[in-house]
Amino acid sequence: MASPVTPTPLLKDELDIVIPTIRNLDFLEMWRPFFQPYHLIIVQDGDPSKVINVPQGFDYELYNRNDINRILGPKASCISFKDSACRCFGYMVSKKKYIFTIDDDCFVAKDPSGNDINALEQHIKNLLTPSTPYFFNTLYDPYREGTDFVRGYPFSLREGVATAVSHGLWLNIPDYDAPTQLVKPRERNTRFVDAVLTIPKGTLFPMCGMNLAFDRELIGPAMYFGLMGDGQPIGRYDDMWAGWCMKVICDHLGLGVKTGLPYIWHSKASNPFVNLRKEYKGIYWQEELIPFFQGATLPKECTTVQSCYKELSKQVKAKLGKVDDYFNKLADAMLTWIEAWDELNPSAQLPNGK
Amino acid sequence: MASPVTPTPLLKDELDIVIPTIRNLDFLEMWRPFFQPYHLIIVQDGDPSKVINVPQGFDYELYNRNDINRILGPKASCISFKDSACRCFGYMVSKKKYIFTIDDDCFVAKDPSGNDINALEQHIKNLLTPSTPYFFNTLYDPYREGTDFVRGYPFSLREGVATAVSHGLWLNIPDYDAPTQLVKPRERNTRFVDAVLTIPKGTLFPMCGMNLAFDRELIGPAMYFGLMGDGQPIGRYDDMWAGWCMKVICDHLGLGVKTGLPYIWHSKASNPFVNLRKEYKGIYWQEELIPFFQGATLPKECTTVQSCYKELSKQVKAKLGKVDDYFNKLADAMLTWIEAWDELNPSAQLPNGK
Repeated sequence: MASPVTPTPLLKDELDIVIPTIRNLDFLEMWRPFFQPYHLIIVQDGDPSKVINVPQGFDYELYNRNDINRILGPKASCISFKDSACRCFGYMVSKKKYIFTIDDDCFVAKDPSGNDINALEQHIKNLLTPSTPYFFNTLYDPYREGTDFVRGYPFSLREGVATAVSHGLWLNIPDYDAPTQLVKPRERNTRFVDAVLTIPKGTLFPMCGMNLAFDRELIGPAMYFGLMGDGQPIGRYDDMWAGWCMKVICDHLGLGVKTGLPYIWHSKASNPFVNLRKEYKGIYWQEELIPFFQGATLPKECTTVQSCYKELSKQVKAKLGKVDDYFNKLADAMLTWIEAWDELNPSAQLPNGK
Repeated sequence: MASPVTPTPLLKDELDIVIPTIRNLDFLEMWRPFFQPYHLIIVQDGDPSKVINVPQGFDYELYNRNDINRILGPKASCISFKDSACRCFGYMVSKKKYIFTIDDDCFVAKDPSGNDINALEQHIKNLLTPSTPYFFNTLYDPYREGTDFVRGYPFSLREGVATAVSHGLWLNIPDYDAPTQLVKPRERNTRFVDAVLTIPKGTLFPMCGMNLAFDRELIGPAMYFGLMGDGQPIGRYDDMWAGWCMKVICDHLGLGVKTGLPYIWHSKASNPFVNLRKEYKGIYWQEELIPFFQGATLPKECTTVQSCYKELSKQVKAKLGKVDDYFNKLADAMLTWIEAWDELNPSAQLPNGK
């Protein structure tokens, strides 16, 4: 992760960088050495009449709310407004195999030697090497240089499985919920943990959308960030929702999910009082959501991400609808999302089909 | 882990250090600042007439094969000979709540700042703080200073569960099997990963006995290192066997297992050719063992480690006996081990019963 920019950037023509924003993208200046070779998809949230400045020299397309409404028509209802959940529109319109998504308050972090971390390069490494969801390797990622599978690791499992998701972490401001922010206002993450690991099969985790990469061919349609923000009773659970749905589907389809490196530098904490208002129903609801996702099983007939996701939507309606009517709306939006995805991504157009 | 020796050593009267050996224990000199306050249980393997020198100033008891035979009588058959699996005899004769076990080729490692790592102190911290087996925390051990549970972590799970086992790692010589040793003779582990994490419920891992601590009140009777070495068709699977049995039982009883820090410095690689001879059946058998343990479930009525272990022994006989007759012998030895454990540890004598 301490390497300089590679002369030929990895996957230059196969990866889009998706950035949700409401402001000028000055933060890209810091990322220029790493991001400039790639195509950006900017999803402008909030007032569509506002002009977002993008630093010169970047190759990008930008979508505001008017564009989303125009492209999706009535199906635009599944894309959140006034919430960074809108980023998933970018996943849908991309035509690339890989997505990296990053928040505009995330800067380049330094490794313990003081070198700039090329987060994107590390995500690509994570995605291009297999995952090991069926047995834990105590020396972490066995495919990394200088390490391997340890004694007692079954040989039949050493080939691993394809990696669908790479979840990166954050130095400085940790990704805490509002109660923890309120209780520990000064806590900063200074610990650089030099590891990447596979989240084991059957284990859920809190996926943060701040610094995240995935293979959209393998898992894209499961990366729906839900109904959040404007007109919704909840916010800040967009990435969590996607993470839980995605993990259940990856476990079912035999795909891998990694977490750990790379770190980005998270520059500013969001307002804990505002966050509390957005989160409080989620804090209550997640106590029901986690057992639901832990117990969710998908039938064998579900062999595509789309069919898994539709089945999950059914189960959400059947089992979470009684928690709150919001989940009925969300279940419907999940179906709308898949319809919109399939409309924009007829399978023949999928590049590099596996 | 970089702290100096604490003035009052943690758990001084509640922890025994168990060391299996066939040679003079000069390696203790290096550990003197950390181990001297504690009581040692030395299990001498091989020729009982050989005199093992223990550096002056250590408080210890030493058992050779004659002692084991005398103390256990016919039940001594469950304790391996000419294999470091014999160490589990030390777990059985201890009267303390906690055990730390270490190999005599393990030296004090240094952290990235160059400070000696007090491995025992870190193990104690791991054991005295809860585990989180039901949901993965992306910032690793949430109870560690400077970190916490991240956004999306259910609040109902933040109390955690009692920690039964702390599995430490190794710098320098990694714990590889013979094939990997042969293929990568020069590989050294130089990566210091500054993390402790809970192995999630339902996930198995390769537990290495080189640098290991556990709460013997919570899990002691499951820490049987099996039949290895002299007269047995297999070696080097003692700790693996214990780890798989232990993990299934911890998952059933709701106990936690951690891995990661502390590191020790593993000084010398064992001979890969000798290892291959000891391991080769295990390499084949483990392909059957892992699915067996992954599928093993214990009935609700099993509420003690002993009853879980006896039930597991039954399942070993029923399902693995057909893989090789060795597993019938092993299943019997598992029962003998529990009988011997109960004989030496009548429950009334258990200190600090939970």
